[in-house]
Amino acid sequence: MKMAIAGSGAMGSRFGFMLHKAGNDVILIDKWKEHIETIRENGLTVNYNGTEEVVDIPIYYPDQVTDQVDVVFLFTKAMFLGEMLEDIQPIIGEDTKVVCLLNGIGHEMVMKEYVALKNILIGVTIWTAGLKGPGKIELEGTGSTEIQNFLPGGEEKAKEIVAVLKEAGLNGIYSENVKFSIWRKACVNGVLNATCSLLDTTLGEMFKTEEALSVTNKIVKEFVEVAKKQDVLLDFDETVAYIVKTAEELGHHYPSMHQDLIQHNRRTEIDFINGAVARLANEYGVDAPINALITDFIHIKEKVLKVN
Amino acid sequence: MKMAIAGSGAMGSRFGFMLHKAGNDVILIDKWKEHIETIRENGLTVNYNGTEEVVDIPIYYPDQVTDQVDVVFLFTKAMFLGEMLEDIQPIIGEDTKVVCLLNGIGHEMVMKEYVALKNILIGVTIWTAGLKGPGKIELEGTGSTEIQNFLPGGEEKAKEIVAVLKEAGLNGIYSENVKFSIWRKACVNGVLNATCSLLDTTLGEMFKTEEALSVTNKIVKEFVEVAKKQDVLLDFDETVAYIVKTAEELGHHYPSMHQDLIQHNRRTEIDFINGAVARLANEYGVDAPINALITDFIHIKEKVLKVN
Repeated sequence: MKMAIAGSGAMGSRFGFMLHKAGNDVILIDKWKEHIETIRENGLTVNYNGTEEVVDIPIYYPDQVTDQVDVVFLFTKAMFLGEMLEDIQPIIGEDTKVVCLLNGIGHEMVMKEYVALKNILIGVTIWTAGLKGPGKIELEGTGSTEIQNFLPGGEEKAKEIVAVLKEAGLNGIYSENVKFSIWRKACVNGVLNATCSLLDTTLGEMFKTEEALSVTNKIVKEFVEVAKKQDVLLDFDETVAYIVKTAEELGHHYPSMHQDLIQHNRRTEIDFINGAVARLANEYGVDAPINALITDFIHIKEKVLKVN
Repeated sequence: MKMAIAGSGAMGSRFGFMLHKAGNDVILIDKWKEHIETIRENGLTVNYNGTEEVVDIPIYYPDQVTDQVDVVFLFTKAMFLGEMLEDIQPIIGEDTKVVCLLNGIGHEMVMKEYVALKNILIGVTIWTAGLKGPGKIELEGTGSTEIQNFLPGGEEKAKEIVAVLKEAGLNGIYSENVKFSIWRKACVNGVLNATCSLLDTTLGEMFKTEEALSVTNKIVKEFVEVAKKQDVLLDFDETVAYIVKTAEELGHHYPSMHQDLIQHNRRTEIDFINGAVARLANEYGVDAPINALITDFIHIKEKVLKVN
């Protein structure tokens, strides 16, 4: 199958690498100059579960792609999604399926401006991936990738893509209710990413305090209320328990938003996580003061740190 | 008049110094060993509007005071108030007036366990003072000090104390509604102290962002609601405007809670500012989720920083 990875950072490169190894015709797309030049000169260097491999995969700037593909996997940062889809229009044909695997909520609202609804698939992945420098990634652990067609009728094609993901070792799962999984992951991120970034703590430091549970309850409660308005039924107790367990297991980690904001002074995806809940709550006429405040706080911190 | 300053940090030392200079019989009370030893050996060194003076004022540990005084001015950190009042019982006679000038809300609830209600005065001061090291303070700028008797009938004595403060240059004002001033100051602190400490910013950095006003509105709204339950009528628009003006005027300052928490890793007074609003809201059956969340966040930060 002919595929493009739109947004080839750590996670995009993982998918590109594993799909390429499985025999698919893959191209990478990204905007980071050093990354592109390194991969063009030396290939993509992958430390794959402890063993180093170098693979030759074509990589392009978004405005330099030309040939239509069968499937596009989207892995941009949420705030750059529209720009990416606009740039890569030449590779999106009448039947090209576009699979959104971004963090956060509501990306279909952006996608539908550039992609026919029948070709949209949404999903969520719990693989991890580390970027060690331009052209260099480190992959370990295991994960899975749930996807589902956005419109009824797209099931057959979605299952074909799931099969390809399975063959590539990416543990594809066809989901009957992927919106649930997307909301659930967003809720986990809405607690862990936002608070540890604001408070500059690891997950473990934060969850050693009794107040962490009180904060978690407040954030999750609003996610549950707003998700319900989208017919997504998050279970409050189960979600809170899952978050606490995740924080314990990954105690010494700083979440990705902390890496973006505090460590690298980069713009965060807050508007697509807590900010999305606050915005949707407003639209639905329910209350989400906690997520609105957290979104404000993160934006203030972004501005004070003069993020890119 | 015979007076004691209970809690002789920067602000307590300012009051002690100015009251002593005006001819009153003043003692200082504190627990900081180096501060006490320095003052006992070398006197209190005061840079008073640019001119250095050294004055000899007796200073004691709280559990070493013996002689009754006419007036006690309380300047401890809020969380140490009860302990201080317990220790200094020997100096509080049947007619000793006790004037609370602490930041925050609701200290009368603690005071009334140790002081007869008829002897309690509450107040608020907007003087500033800087501690430059043990036994050394720096005083500049101007300010005023509003006080009022807690119970009706105490007006005459309160006005005597106001006169003493005036003579000492401390610009005493007898307030007909000091609870309003206390709430208003707490609200200003509830916005500026808490948020700049959480976000590790100066007042100016924070208020350059458009989100600062949104956050301010949310915090003030809850203060206004809860104050109303105590028959204190804060004006929402006026309070917000005052906070914005204060942040602009003191743009390059870090507020005192930032100094405590971030710069010196000391416990904050959050429970007597935003935390008091959250607690009172709970008692009155109104909602204050924003102040409750901010209180949780500050407590998490205190624990992560292992404050004293």
